[in-house]
Amino acid sequence: MTYRAPVRDMMFVIQELAGIDAVAQLPGFEEAGADTAQAVLEEAAKFNEGVVAPLNWTGDQQPSALKDGVVTTTPGFKDAFKAFAEGGWQGLQHPADFGGQGLPKTIGFACTEMLNSANLSFALCPLLTDGAIEALLTAGSPEQQQAYIPKMVSGEWTGTMNLTEPQAGSDLAAVRTRAEPQPDGTYRIFGTKIFITYGEHDMADNIVHLVLARVTGAPEGVKGISLFIVPKVMPDGSSNDVHCVSLEHKLGIKASPTAVLQYGDHGGAVGYLVGQENQGLAYMFVMMNAARYAVGMQGVALAERAYQKAVGYARDRVQGKAVDGSTPAGGGIIHHPDVKRMLMTMRALTEGCRAMAGVAAAAYDAAHAHPDAATRAQNQTFYEFMVPLVKGFSTEMSLEVGSLAVQVHGGMGFIEETGVAQMYRDAKILTIYEGTTAIQANDLVGRKTVRDGGAAARAIAGQIEATEAELAKRDSVAARGMLLRLRAAREAFVDVVNWMAAEGKANPGGVYAGSVPYLMLAGNLMAGWQMARALMVAEDKLAAGEDAEFMRAKIATARFYADHILSRVPGQRDSVVAGADAVMSMPLEAF
Amino acid sequence: MTYRAPVRDMMFVIQELAGIDAVAQLPGFEEAGADTAQAVLEEAAKFNEGVVAPLNWTGDQQPSALKDGVVTTTPGFKDAFKAFAEGGWQGLQHPADFGGQGLPKTIGFACTEMLNSANLSFALCPLLTDGAIEALLTAGSPEQQQAYIPKMVSGEWTGTMNLTEPQAGSDLAAVRTRAEPQPDGTYRIFGTKIFITYGEHDMADNIVHLVLARVTGAPEGVKGISLFIVPKVMPDGSSNDVHCVSLEHKLGIKASPTAVLQYGDHGGAVGYLVGQENQGLAYMFVMMNAARYAVGMQGVALAERAYQKAVGYARDRVQGKAVDGSTPAGGGIIHHPDVKRMLMTMRALTEGCRAMAGVAAAAYDAAHAHPDAATRAQNQTFYEFMVPLVKGFSTEMSLEVGSLAVQVHGGMGFIEETGVAQMYRDAKILTIYEGTTAIQANDLVGRKTVRDGGAAARAIAGQIEATEAELAKRDSVAARGMLLRLRAAREAFVDVVNWMAAEGKANPGGVYAGSVPYLMLAGNLMAGWQMARALMVAEDKLAAGEDAEFMRAKIATARFYADHILSRVPGQRDSVVAGADAVMSMPLEAF
Repeated sequence: MTYRAPVRDMMFVIQELAGIDAVAQLPGFEEAGADTAQAVLEEAAKFNEGVVAPLNWTGDQQPSALKDGVVTTTPGFKDAFKAFAEGGWQGLQHPADFGGQGLPKTIGFACTEMLNSANLSFALCPLLTDGAIEALLTAGSPEQQQAYIPKMVSGEWTGTMNLTEPQAGSDLAAVRTRAEPQPDGTYRIFGTKIFITYGEHDMADNIVHLVLARVTGAPEGVKGISLFIVPKVMPDGSSNDVHCVSLEHKLGIKASPTAVLQYGDHGGAVGYLVGQENQGLAYMFVMMNAARYAVGMQGVALAERAYQKAVGYARDRVQGKAVDGSTPAGGGIIHHPDVKRMLMTMRALTEGCRAMAGVAAAAYDAAHAHPDAATRAQNQTFYEFMVPLVKGFSTEMSLEVGSLAVQVHGGMGFIEETGVAQMYRDAKILTIYEGTTAIQANDLVGRKTVRDGGAAARAIAGQIEATEAELAKRDSVAARGMLLRLRAAREAFVDVVNWMAAEGKANPGGVYAGSVPYLMLAGNLMAGWQMARALMVAEDKLAAGEDAEFMRAKIATARFYADHILSRVPGQRDSVVAGADAVMSMPLEAF
Repeated sequence: MTYRAPVRDMMFVIQELAGIDAVAQLPGFEEAGADTAQAVLEEAAKFNEGVVAPLNWTGDQQPSALKDGVVTTTPGFKDAFKAFAEGGWQGLQHPADFGGQGLPKTIGFACTEMLNSANLSFALCPLLTDGAIEALLTAGSPEQQQAYIPKMVSGEWTGTMNLTEPQAGSDLAAVRTRAEPQPDGTYRIFGTKIFITYGEHDMADNIVHLVLARVTGAPEGVKGISLFIVPKVMPDGSSNDVHCVSLEHKLGIKASPTAVLQYGDHGGAVGYLVGQENQGLAYMFVMMNAARYAVGMQGVALAERAYQKAVGYARDRVQGKAVDGSTPAGGGIIHHPDVKRMLMTMRALTEGCRAMAGVAAAAYDAAHAHPDAATRAQNQTFYEFMVPLVKGFSTEMSLEVGSLAVQVHGGMGFIEETGVAQMYRDAKILTIYEGTTAIQANDLVGRKTVRDGGAAARAIAGQIEATEAELAKRDSVAARGMLLRLRAAREAFVDVVNWMAAEGKANPGGVYAGSVPYLMLAGNLMAGWQMARALMVAEDKLAAGEDAEFMRAKIATARFYADHILSRVPGQRDSVVAGADAVMSMPLEAF
């Protein structure tokens, strides 16, 4: 077994931190209680461990390949995707009206993690399809929804996001792909899109490309971008004028075909406008926000599998004795204090980010399904604050965890056949695609912090203070240690928020110079806050004699998070608040 | 030009921080003043930029390959190595008695950096040869020295270090390769060695393997290990019984052949004992210490080239406008505050580590050549304290810098053809070979801190306090900012040292649990200390109107180092001093 789904920890997050019981009170989610969660997670674990995970290394060694315009995916991917579709996994969180299972994100996020732990490259196909479904649910016409969504929910068809062009990456204002209106109400699409994940493959009967393009005569910049459906196969079974002209040769996620797509070389690809002209970017953001959260889960997922691999190696590899002589005969390097420290770092970051994502998922569910408008709005604000953290912090931490996983393996980690190097390579895309960490940080600073003068951020700080008050009632070493670090981190967060709110307008360069350190600080704090809550739950359960081994490990992990991860926060405050001038004072020509 | 040697910054370190004028006062180094340094560096720059650097990408694409027991290196490597040898570069720091140039390390370290920036894989061959020369200078008989050293110094022959076996990596006590004494005083060597860098190749006429093995009947453990010379080609021109049976398929440094060597499959490889039986590990440490410092320079070197590549891309890549509107038409992403922050992080870490290494090199020279024994001893202590920091901190920082270099490139960074992904892959070996970061940290804690009760560490802290006193006399913003961070970092360092000295014997597990955070803290501080010294020199030179652009950039970089890098230190103190229990309290079965 190369991967074992952490169902126990996921259920802890779902029940104790995200609060599945409350989610099951929401209209439409009445069946989605803890028992359902447990059953779904166990099924997902079985499928991902048994079917998807074994293909991860295969995909690295035998990537998808392009020949004569046809992309053949890694051996085994096609059958695995068929099984995925037949198992109903693509429709897990989508509406029952379109054939989905309509489960809350509070359950779905854990399944997303498992799929990505099992196989990051494979999981990208469903991830993009999820985004396309979301966009069509938001902005598609009823006819479009009927025509496309059921086929995507069932896994017969897959979806893509076509944003990037050679000159238009983070800056979508520079999109040049053009759409010419036709008398029949359709459009002809012309242009080149790059970095299109699963832009061409052999796992489904059709591919629904969602494409950003400019209608002839549209305004410059982001206000002139429209969204189009461009199916690979037309309703009459003929091929549309979209062609995969090459696949990228990448550092990682090699099994996932990253296509250059050429639209309209033979008269124009037929495109159908989604929603209103020139509103394309707003619709695409729906897709991107879903995808950003999911990429954050990819970070957690990669970290979890890397942790498991490192633990396995550390148990088996015999090499020397621990300094305190505690290694028994034949004992592994896991007895060495620094190996423990590395494993604990990996574990604490993974569990912290999982908990943060779970709590964000519950807010998403409440934001969508709660009967009270004010509660919905409050949860929406919270969720939107968390998305750049789930994406930015979890993926950055996955780089650290992936690197530590190699480190635990020593020289063997550098040998490709060991398999852990793949994780190090795969991880690096996560901080880049669906908006780099800097793009997430811009979102966090601009839309989520400066725009409301720091109100949303301070409201969360208030919730953290309440957790501190709970910690203060306890006298365990773990609770006291956590309180010390959590309070210092929360105070640092508030310092930064206040500084950004005050300086945001007058000194945008300086404020944005601190954007990524602020994101790292805030993500660390939010994950640490959840570890603080977890610690208290675990202490109480332990006292009640419930699942003692798990609870003891949770307490130890939370303690570690406090002293080794949360302790990074105050220094980051200094970087943001005092360090802006140092970033901006270097003359450009001197670099 | 893919790489431009930072001669100006190197000369700044050599003259202003390492103090070449004082080195040139040492007996034997009279000719090695600033003018010599400048001339040597300019020649080295020309050679490495022109001949070696262009082969870096080639090596990644066309690695060394094994066929029928013969290793063919990357096209171009053989000629480049010939040119390297003919240029006298292998002998740069070796004694004139053996054909070397006898230059001080204070000059040589910069040449080491350049060679490694140009091509990490290529540079490994001379790096290992340097180590073999050092070991023979220390422990070889006069006959052995005459037989091997001149040929290695001239680059006709190369050297290897044969330590690792499948069951013996960090733990050399587990070495099993055996040496059977022969009546003629030679030995027959039998065993398998793995991870042997340039263990077989076609760039030289002979390879001098230095091999750790156990003489029949030797004691168990490290006290029974001897060191042998095993030449690939025997004096009579016949082949010795050592064979390359495979090359590793690696994450990075692919051009460098990493061999599995089989000794004695055909009757026994002829080996010549170096020094005394059972003293092999002590001799090998000579070689390893030279190599550890050099691997630290590999970290600096990789970071420098990654920085240059990222700056180049950031200037050229047009994408959006900076938040403050400061991007001119057609201006690159270098105008974005977070891109500046990433570049400054890369630059500050690189310059800080280079400065630390330069100052350590000057101590090495004084430790070897100073006429006064007490001064020699003092410098030796300082140098020995710095070696694990140069190795450990500089290589860990190169991981951060390599990852940031990819990040600056965005999606293009993930495409192998861009070339920056190679740096990310290459870097990961640096924290592993020649002793992992944890092994460096064990050395720092055990031999360099706890053994003398923290005396050496506190002596250095005293020197840093003197720098703080100098800073305190200045009222520039930069000096005040630096003072604040340097003082806090030095105090944190002393806290950790005191804690380790006090706890070292009673609580070794806890102390070693903090060993790597301590190493990161100490390395950060030592590099930051040199940046503080650099800042004051630059302020003075700027006031004197000397090289204003360079001096302004140095001040900006030092300021950045203070607020963004040194500011990490206090949190690390908390991890070490408060966080040990959190590492050690997790039951092993719960991982």
